[in-house]
Amino acid sequence: MARNKHPEETVKRILDVAYSLFMEKGYEATSIQDIINGLGGLSKGAIYHHFKSKEDILIAVTDRMTYESNQMLADIRDRSDLSGKDKLKMIFQASLNRPVQDEIFTVAPDFSKNPKLLFSLLQDTIYDAAPHYVMPIIEQGIADGSIRTDYPEELAELIILVANVWTNPMIFDSSEEKTFHKFVIFQQMMRGFGLDIVDQEMIERVRALAAIYQRKK
Amino acid sequence: MARNKHPEETVKRILDVAYSLFMEKGYEATSIQDIINGLGGLSKGAIYHHFKSKEDILIAVTDRMTYESNQMLADIRDRSDLSGKDKLKMIFQASLNRPVQDEIFTVAPDFSKNPKLLFSLLQDTIYDAAPHYVMPIIEQGIADGSIRTDYPEELAELIILVANVWTNPMIFDSSEEKTFHKFVIFQQMMRGFGLDIVDQEMIERVRALAAIYQRKK
Repeated sequence: MARNKHPEETVKRILDVAYSLFMEKGYEATSIQDIINGLGGLSKGAIYHHFKSKEDILIAVTDRMTYESNQMLADIRDRSDLSGKDKLKMIFQASLNRPVQDEIFTVAPDFSKNPKLLFSLLQDTIYDAAPHYVMPIIEQGIADGSIRTDYPEELAELIILVANVWTNPMIFDSSEEKTFHKFVIFQQMMRGFGLDIVDQEMIERVRALAAIYQRKK
Repeated sequence: MARNKHPEETVKRILDVAYSLFMEKGYEATSIQDIINGLGGLSKGAIYHHFKSKEDILIAVTDRMTYESNQMLADIRDRSDLSGKDKLKMIFQASLNRPVQDEIFTVAPDFSKNPKLLFSLLQDTIYDAAPHYVMPIIEQGIADGSIRTDYPEELAELIILVANVWTNPMIFDSSEEKTFHKFVIFQQMMRGFGLDIVDQEMIERVRALAAIYQRKK
């Protein structure tokens, strides 16, 4: 294989093409060969030089999408004009309303066929989103009196795991109605922790995302 | 390969030997070759005839362990002398106290290396334990007035997912201390749903299980 002087450029091209195909045809219906065809001239070997499998490409695609949304979470976390509780509400609102959410739900991977992707999402949730975004906000809330808990680290994990994983219709293939019920239960759970931050608008938004996914898959 | 007239007997022997080895050496340190050696005379082909991988053997071993504990859950579910809420408390007590719990924690598989096992556990939790044991108990509780919720199916899922998966030190490798914190958060979550059923004894038991796991892994 010829030496590639610009591997980042190659990776970027692979991800751009894969992303477009996943969006257009869905993840399951896209083959590695489709991606190669879309790259016009890149060999199978060149792809496998960078990615072990189609699932690895998907993980890289979603990582790139996650990168931007993490920047948004960091901006909210670092504001100085809001209480911890208000920030917690805002990260849920912002996460649900960012355009990229629709895109991820359009890709619609079948997690039961992609256990590595599921594991990657669980890892991101527990080892990145929880400690870097949710926990610092809960700690600010404890300091400013807007949130009460003895265990901010664990509460952060529970909240983000329930919101990102359990209510996610892509992971536990849920109908629109069931996703709605789950989010109401999540709302009650949050109230039980004194966190009345899930409002009707968010619940309707989750319902709409579940509908996008059900149509696409 | 010679025809085997008693395939159930062969499967049982494989699972017995694998189980003993997993208990003695731990899952990660046991190889397929160790299992073959323990079977004295069975060929590699005969094992692969029944199981695709070591991970598949582990799933079958845990399924066999789960079968007995499900019988216990069914017995509690079907009692006529307890309220739904009392039954819910009892299934947590019974699950934590059954001897097989120590055994599973002794096997100590590394879920990060066995994504299929993680997926199998998630599936069992959501599609078996939740609808067949926890949800019927919650529905009984709604009928007898001891539990209040509009969505028994989703509440059952949330409870069992948090208790079986999130607080499980084998899945999210948690120290004894962290597992203890998680279970306190779980206790608070349950109280938020009006379910004051997690007591100090259960919390101490979870702590002890986490310690067994941390020693073994």
